[in-house]
Amino acid sequence: MTTGDPTIGDPTTGPGQGYWYAEDKQALLGRLRRIEGQVRGVHRMVAEDTYCIDVLTQISAATRALQAVALGLLEGHLAHCVVDAAQDGGDPSAKVREASDAIARLVRS
Amino acid sequence: MTTGDPTIGDPTTGPGQGYWYAEDKQALLGRLRRIEGQVRGVHRMVAEDTYCIDVLTQISAATRALQAVALGLLEGHLAHCVVDAAQDGGDPSAKVREASDAIARLVRS
Amino acid sequence: MTTGDPTIGDPTTGPGQGYWYAEDKQALLGRLRRIEGQVRGVHRMVAEDTYCIDVLTQISAATRALQAVALGLLEGHLAHCVVDAAQDGGDPSAKVREASDAIARLVRS
Amino acid sequence: MTTGDPTIGDPTTGPGQGYWYAEDKQALLGRLRRIEGQVRGVHRMVAEDTYCIDVLTQISAATRALQAVALGLLEGHLAHCVVDAAQDGGDPSAKVREASDAIARLVRS
Repeated sequence: MTTGDPTIGDPTTGPGQGYWYAEDKQALLGRLRRIEGQVRGVHRMVAEDTYCIDVLTQISAATRALQAVALGLLEGHLAHCVVDAAQDGGDPSAKVREASDAIARLVRS
Repeated sequence: MTTGDPTIGDPTTGPGQGYWYAEDKQALLGRLRRIEGQVRGVHRMVAEDTYCIDVLTQISAATRALQAVALGLLEGHLAHCVVDAAQDGGDPSAKVREASDAIARLVRS
Repeated sequence: MTTGDPTIGDPTTGPGQGYWYAEDKQALLGRLRRIEGQVRGVHRMVAEDTYCIDVLTQISAATRALQAVALGLLEGHLAHCVVDAAQDGGDPSAKVREASDAIARLVRS
Repeated sequence: MTTGDPTIGDPTTGPGQGYWYAEDKQALLGRLRRIEGQVRGVHRMVAEDTYCIDVLTQISAATRALQAVALGLLEGHLAHCVVDAAQDGGDPSAKVREASDAIARLVRS
């Protein structure tokens, strides 16, 4: 993963219309941008020798914010990918398994 | 993973000598820079309409990396702040309470 | 919740046929019985003044075991309750929301 | 919540005087007894085919209660074992490492 690309994160370049989170996409991108800023803030705190307990408080806030984004994505996955697979008359078990594995990773992270 | 700009948040400008994590500071700053890149990568994945399960995998990786940094900071806090307070002949209970509160926030985040 | 009842936990008295976890019910009940034993073991360790780090190890094991049960129940909920609601031609959104709330509680617990 | 049998795992038989949690021991044992009852309650809910979301809510409550006990034990470990090791003029690093490992297991469980 390299991030030196000047076009990074430009939300207007993605196809953006076809996927379920298109409707919430700007809000989601804004939240991720803020979390990136939180992590950059943690970096700055360490660079400036901030007291470690205060650094830990900021890390917990960033972690919680990431988990909140993950929970929102999971709900969208259930509401769109799993439900769509079930309603298409196909076998939704692969989607269910994927969702379950993602939940397990999230609970254990 | 490179961030393309080595001058952002220049870690060499902090006082850096007086605090316990001075010895590990460059490694710690490098880890935080990589996590910042991970979050930026998540942002890009959403911008490009990446399948949500893959986005969740990246979020879990970033969350785990943040927690690993937090665990390292906590160990440093115990080894330096708590132990120093105890060895100074003072009352280390305030440091213990701070550490405990930080652990609780971390476990619950 | 009272537990003085001698019939407690008798898996043969439940209706057991109508609910999705009927098929896995004996295995699930066995896992919960073992977790109950783990918690009882933690109690005994404290009663016997076992070194606190060893008690913590046992508590972590019991916590992980409870989370594994929860993950199994969640997967069942998705595979049965959410998918059934979607396939019945009704609106599965209430089931999706319930599942999402349960996932959030689990991630934050 | 009552367990109906005060003699199970009789907490009065431990030595109970020598270890740091002696002072809080009865409260700690009471909390563990209640958690054991919560797990038994989860078992009964499954035996009676309770709706899985309600079972999950109880599992989350038991998990949180276990984590609260663990956090209390950790704080005691820091306040007693780590601080005592530091004040004894010895090397507290083994105690710090044990505590850090226990915190890591707890955060990841």
